[in-house]
This record gives sequence, structure tokens and C-alpha cells, in this order.
Amino acid sequence: MSQTEPIRFGILGCADIARKLSRTILLSSTATISAVGSRTLSKATTFAKLNNFRPTAKVYGSYEEVLDDPNVDAVYLPLPTTLHVKWAVAAAKKGKHVLLEKPVAVSVKEFDEIVKVCEECGVRFMDGTMWMHHPRTEVMKEFLEDGEKFGKVKSIHTCFTFGADPDFLENNIRVKPDLDALGSLGDEGWYCARAILWANNYELPKTALAYREPVLNKAGVLLSCGASLYWEDGRVATFYCSFLSNLTMDITAVGTKGTLHVHDFIIPYEEKKASFYAASKSSFGVTRQPSKHVIENHLTQEALMVTEFSRLVAEIKLKNAKPEEKWPTISRKTQLILDAVKASIDKGFEPVQIQE
Amino acid sequence: MSQTEPIRFGILGCADIARKLSRTILLSSTATISAVGSRTLSKATTFAKLNNFRPTAKVYGSYEEVLDDPNVDAVYLPLPTTLHVKWAVAAAKKGKHVLLEKPVAVSVKEFDEIVKVCEECGVRFMDGTMWMHHPRTEVMKEFLEDGEKFGKVKSIHTCFTFGADPDFLENNIRVKPDLDALGSLGDEGWYCARAILWANNYELPKTALAYREPVLNKAGVLLSCGASLYWEDGRVATFYCSFLSNLTMDITAVGTKGTLHVHDFIIPYEEKKASFYAASKSSFGVTRQPSKHVIENHLTQEALMVTEFSRLVAEIKLKNAKPEEKWPTISRKTQLILDAVKASIDKGFEPVQIQE
Repeated sequence: MSQTEPIRFGILGCADIARKLSRTILLSSTATISAVGSRTLSKATTFAKLNNFRPTAKVYGSYEEVLDDPNVDAVYLPLPTTLHVKWAVAAAKKGKHVLLEKPVAVSVKEFDEIVKVCEECGVRFMDGTMWMHHPRTEVMKEFLEDGEKFGKVKSIHTCFTFGADPDFLENNIRVKPDLDALGSLGDEGWYCARAILWANNYELPKTALAYREPVLNKAGVLLSCGASLYWEDGRVATFYCSFLSNLTMDITAVGTKGTLHVHDFIIPYEEKKASFYAASKSSFGVTRQPSKHVIENHLTQEALMVTEFSRLVAEIKLKNAKPEEKWPTISRKTQLILDAVKASIDKGFEPVQIQE
Repeated sequence: MSQTEPIRFGILGCADIARKLSRTILLSSTATISAVGSRTLSKATTFAKLNNFRPTAKVYGSYEEVLDDPNVDAVYLPLPTTLHVKWAVAAAKKGKHVLLEKPVAVSVKEFDEIVKVCEECGVRFMDGTMWMHHPRTEVMKEFLEDGEKFGKVKSIHTCFTFGADPDFLENNIRVKPDLDALGSLGDEGWYCARAILWANNYELPKTALAYREPVLNKAGVLLSCGASLYWEDGRVATFYCSFLSNLTMDITAVGTKGTLHVHDFIIPYEEKKASFYAASKSSFGVTRQPSKHVIENHLTQEALMVTEFSRLVAEIKLKNAKPEEKWPTISRKTQLILDAVKASIDKGFEPVQIQE
């Protein structure tokens, strides 16, 4: 296989979320789709047709067949969270690299199983947190790391909410205890926890304390919740996530010398550019309004994610590189925060220590 | 006294904060300064000179003399919080209306004493929370009350921080336990608690839970702290305040159908106009960016506060109106939240019930 050959993806499952990434892969120069599997052949066939898969792409009536296909290098796994450990492990064992939707697992225990097998089998692991790959994210990080302009981070608040419609609240996998046991915490809180880690150089907080009065559905799945997180040096972070509020995607990071605001961190309002607001050494006396920074992006964040994952996979295919630890480590820390918040809720809103 | 005669203010104390309001009163058509008192005559004289008081304004070397001056209708009281109860009560007993800086007291118990005497003596009470009087505040409120555009409020986050210089952190009254015992919570958290109440139609939360790991100085005064607040219906609010971070003045209110962002709610970036961002029925599919709303104001928020207070005082002077309950009630609820957060900190971060 030459360096220019694209990484061949197999898609496991035909969830709504798989559409966007499938289209992105089809448009990518570094990746292609060579197979899709669903629980029924007809579902897979419909999905392939609707998304304009090439005629050469294989269509399977099971996930196993995708994993057995020698023309599949990597799988994209948008299945319900409960199924992640089973299918990510199965894929790795068949030598397939794994791009896994978030939350990566129901618990860090299950996630560790996934990573262990990926390491043993020498395959790449990455989660599907797209905003990490947007060029804006890097520019914002430069601001946060600027000792003069931002100083040291002191507090962060993040929020991810959207207003789910009645059908979602009744039927979506994200509100079913047997499919996505973490509900809003797993689906939305994942992004908040990630943003908090990102702004803290991935230094885990010491303690998590869930907000009181979370909203649960009849099956006990979280529809609304939040938490405060604490580091030993006095840093504090809070996040709120909900299926019951208007779409809001905020990070507010306050440092000793600067403040960062972004209002669309998960999915930018526009496809080709994205903005954030930065303020430095603000004072009452002089008007120092935050400055708006606009970052243009030629490729969408999902395309950039596919490119990065394909690059990592190609490193192994072409250069026999070892699996790197950056992405699995970040995923694990994110999951650790979710686990701690869930434990805090289960313990009646007691503080829970977070241990690596 | 005719309706056009301005309300005659006496200023008690020459704190920095008194300058801005003194200048505002001097420029006002509804109010004037007829006296200023300080602990020493020289301080009061210097203050009167520096701020261009009229030659007819009396200058006193004590607070008592201001209260005894028959040409004083109302007092502005920018003294350290610990002194509020003593001097607000003394002023009311002398028949002077009271415009009191925030926090209104060290505790609601002391505040109730102030209000009781104001009622008994038939004088007006208002606290000095200027942003309440900015026309933007009313326009934002209209958005929050719009059932179609904003829906029902679900979560609010507010933040007021500023980076105090070393001199402030060493010598300012706000870090002295005998002068401003509530520190950052009283000075900054006051605005956050008020904003949270304001966005909830002044419905008190049921429970307050202080953030863990607050930062205190050697004397035990809060330099950084925060809290989460809970209503029985699942609404949640959080706030963070600090003397150790870059100036940040945020309200983020998320409702079932809309989101409000304002980044300078306490002191607008500009004197003659102020903005906020409103989003309604935001969705992933269609780009629905928040819209920026700009509200022009002919008078500054401090001038509008003086105008409103003067109007209320004139109502009593001219029409024998009874003291109204709106402003004291709002002040009291704000203080109740601060008291509960302080109690939560003192109890080792236990939840504290808030009772009216």
C-alpha cells in the first residue's frame, strides 16, 4: 500500500450520527468507505444508497462481516454506548483501528478493556470529539497558554444543552438505560468535561461534586445535570448539560490576566470560519472590550478529525509505528470525570475523589 | 418644597466609591449634595474640593452632623459593610432616606434591623446596585420573560471577578474581617446573587451549596468563592466571584427556548450604550447565531439610579406616600443568598436551606 492510498473505513451501524461522518469520509482524500454493516442488510443497503457510497463499497447485514472484511483498515463505531466495549474490542482483535463515538464507554473500567486490546493488537484508538480538531481550538489554546495575556486559569464554566423534541425524549437511544446509561451526562457532559480538561492542560481535577436536583426520566436516565470540579490549588470548574434547554455551547475560562469566551465550541455556527472572544488585563477604568478572533478553516472539523485519524493509522500501516497514547489518555480522563460525576449523583451528591 | 426642587443628599464617608456617585448627583437635575461628613473635617473638605461640591454644601468632621443637618433629605452611605447597620439606622431615625451601598449588611439579621427602622420612620430604602437601573436590564428582562423566545429559565451562570492589585489585597476594606467580613462574596457575589434572583423573577432558591476550596486570606476573608443554588423544580444557578482573576462580568441564562449572554452586566463597557446577545430556538441544522442587541442610554446607570431614588423620596416628601417594599425586598433576598452561601462554607460545604 502506497502512502497516498486512503485509509479504508468500515462503518458499524447506521445511526443518524453516522451520516455526517460517512459523508465526510467520502469527501476525504485520506480516507474512503469500503464497507458498512447493520443489524439488517436492508438497513445497510438503504444507508449506503442515501449517502452515495461507491458501488464498490460492501454492504453487510451484520457487524461481524465488516470486521472480517480484509479490505477494511479501520472502523467508525457510532453504536449506542453500551455496545462500545463489545464491538471496539472485537474490531481491535480483528486488527481494525478504532474511531469511537463519545462517550467512549459506560465506565472507565470498560474503556480500559478497549484500550488494553487496542494496545495488544497494535491498532490506533481515537474518540469522535470533533471540536478538538478545529483550528480554532488550537488558537484558543495558545491564548490560554499565554502567561502575559491569560495568565493562570482560575475558573471555567462550560455548558452544553439542547432542546430535544418529544420523539427524542421518548425514543432516542440517549434516553434508554440499556443503550446509553449516562444520558445527558454521557452525550453532552462529555464535551463539557473535555473542555474543562483541555483548558487545564489535561490535569485531572481532584474532586467532583454533582449538582443537586438532576432531572431524570422515568427509566432513571439523566436528562439534565451538572457538576463542580476542584483542583487542590483552588481552581474550580463547573458544567451544566441538558436535553431540556435551548442549544447552548459555551466555554468561559477566566485566568489571572485574561478571559476567554466561546459560544459555539462543539459545532461552530459557520462551517468555514469560527470565532471566540479574548480579553486581557481588563479594567474598570479604561474600556477594554474583549477582542473577537475569527479563524478560517478550509476543512470542517469532522474532515480534520478523519484526516488526523487516517494519518495516525497510516503511520502504523506504513511505518509500523506503535500506538500513541495521547488520544486514549485524553479519552480516559474525560471518562473518569463522567464516572466521578455519576458516582457523586448515585451517592446522593457527595464529593467523589478522582483517581487516575 | 416644590416638585422641581432636587432631593438634597448628605454623603457619609469619603470612600473611593463615593466619588462616582457624588459626581453623578452633582450632575443630576433631581438631586443635589448639601453635605458631606467624614471622620475628620480635613478629609471631608478635601473630598468636597476634589469633587467640585458647590460652596453652599456643608462639610462636617463627623457623620452625626450630617444626620443632624435639616437641609439633608437623604444619605448615601458608602461606608464599610460592618458599619451599615449603625449608620443606616441612625440616618433613618433622623428621618433621612437611605441609599446604601452593597452588600447591604453583614447578615440579613442586621439588614432587617435597618428595614424595620426605615419603615417605622417612614423613609425610603434602596441599595446601590446600579446595573438594575440601566435600560439594558429591562430589555434583557423582556427577553427572559418572553415565553416564545426564551421560554422558562432552566439554568443561570454568573461570574464577577477582577484582578485586585497587591495594595488592594493588603489594605482595602474589602479584605478586612472587621470592615467587610464577607470579602469577595459580599463585594462581588452580591451582583451574582442579584442577577440570579433577577433572572428568576426574584424567586428565592431553596438550597445553597458553596463551592469547595474557596480562597481566603490570612485573616479568613474570602478572596475567591462560588456556589450552586437550587430550586425545587430542577432549576439550577451557579456563580463564581474572585479578587484574583481578570475582570469578568457575565450572565448566561439558558431557557427552554432561548439563551441570553451578557459580558459586562455590572459596568457596561461603554457609557452611552450597552449590548447583550440573545438566541432563540437555536438548532444544529440551521445556523441561528445569537443576535446582538444594543441599547443606547442617555443617562448613565448611576444617574438613573439617583433619579429613581430621588423620585421615590419625592413621593414621600410631596405626597406622603408610604415606603414601598420592592427595593428592600430585593435587597433582603440578595442578602439571604449571601448568608446561605457563607453558612454553607462555614459548615464545611454542606447544603443550606434558604428561608424567607
